[in-house]
Amino acid sequence: MIRVVIIGSGNVAQHLIKAFAKSDIVEITQVFSRKKESLTNLLDSSKITSNLNALIDADLYIISVSDNAIAEVSHQLNIENKLVVHTSGSVDIIDLNDKNRKGVFYPLQTFSKNAAISFDIIPICLEAENKEDYKLLETVAKSISDKVFNINSNQRKALHVSAVFVNNFVNHLYKIGNDICNDNNIPFEILQPLITETANKIASLSPNEAQTGPAKRNDTQTINTHLQFLTDENQKEIYKILTKSIIDNGKKL
Amino acid sequence: MIRVVIIGSGNVAQHLIKAFAKSDIVEITQVFSRKKESLTNLLDSSKITSNLNALIDADLYIISVSDNAIAEVSHQLNIENKLVVHTSGSVDIIDLNDKNRKGVFYPLQTFSKNAAISFDIIPICLEAENKEDYKLLETVAKSISDKVFNINSNQRKALHVSAVFVNNFVNHLYKIGNDICNDNNIPFEILQPLITETANKIASLSPNEAQTGPAKRNDTQTINTHLQFLTDENQKEIYKILTKSIIDNGKKL
Repeated sequence: MIRVVIIGSGNVAQHLIKAFAKSDIVEITQVFSRKKESLTNLLDSSKITSNLNALIDADLYIISVSDNAIAEVSHQLNIENKLVVHTSGSVDIIDLNDKNRKGVFYPLQTFSKNAAISFDIIPICLEAENKEDYKLLETVAKSISDKVFNINSNQRKALHVSAVFVNNFVNHLYKIGNDICNDNNIPFEILQPLITETANKIASLSPNEAQTGPAKRNDTQTINTHLQFLTDENQKEIYKILTKSIIDNGKKL
Repeated sequence: MIRVVIIGSGNVAQHLIKAFAKSDIVEITQVFSRKKESLTNLLDSSKITSNLNALIDADLYIISVSDNAIAEVSHQLNIENKLVVHTSGSVDIIDLNDKNRKGVFYPLQTFSKNAAISFDIIPICLEAENKEDYKLLETVAKSISDKVFNINSNQRKALHVSAVFVNNFVNHLYKIGNDICNDNNIPFEILQPLITETANKIASLSPNEAQTGPAKRNDTQTINTHLQFLTDENQKEIYKILTKSIIDNGKKL
């Protein structure tokens, strides 16, 4: 069995503990948590420590704490020349302390505390400084997910920016759609099947091929009708800039 | 049986023909199509006419042609005082010719020619000028969908603008995410589970509650890192305006 120690008790840490519990080749031998109570429903309390100086010997140490605490926690570890990884999408591998071998084990997903997530379809992005460490990370990752990718720190930065567009910004557009519906006494649920279909469509078509709508057709009459309809200046501005971006993109093709 | 004549042979018309074929209470008695061949795999060729003056008697006439042809086609019909509806999200009910009773039968979805769509979850938005006509439309709609809504022309306009935000603009953000991935040799499929989860999340949470990310946290350090990372001026501008909109929205709450 590959012995893994997890440092942290947040959402990602908890989802990892649950996922590894089902693995045949990975054993969580210890978890560090300031508050023991938050984890007692997930694993035997003898495996939980609240003392960062009491870490036991393992093949892999996974730091799963908030982004701005990663460097400091990696500095505090009383171990040396071990494989230590973090789980963040936006922290560079070089931010980990030099006394250990470094790596990244980044599951790309929005984790909610209570939502049950099937880990096998969650992409895990790996990075390591040498081949042997990468192989170990790969074995560990493949034991819980079918989608494992080699992604370096610069690519991970790009991925994080991409994720802001397709997750945070997309959700904000949902919010604007919701506001327009509310203002006109329309139940927002009418749009849910369209939203789901839009997301699913690009699993088989590229977003470029999937693009439809008045901007794509350069249908200025409909665009102007929509701009006249919108009274909120912020919504108008977003409508204009995204319409222009779609039209400009059409010209490039 | 409620006798329905469909005028048109495009995507929406074809999906309707397929859906009504399974209905116990609606019978497609005739379809008008300039090209008979496009429909012969869907229904008996004796039911297809290419002569707009040869329409037979029916309870409901559904005009399913391109938006800018609806008024003209409704004018050309050689029937009077019948219930005539169109299937468009952006055409007003008053654009239909006055010689018949008017209505709207608008299935809100993106229809692709080949993709099989289960009609029962597609919302159908109905409008009619009197109660009796509305009731008939409702019976017809409920025979193929579980989601039927009474939506007037002004609400339909709002819905259409909303749909541009949550479908066309969202897809364009997917495209930008795809571009950033391509520029950094990252397979875009890594983001698919996140995209699906983002769309599914708002079935149980409002978009406001579901919002996450650096703009939501007002995390200026990450925002600046992302803006430095982006080199494309257009992507930068969209990043800025959507980030500002999320931050401003947080202040309002």
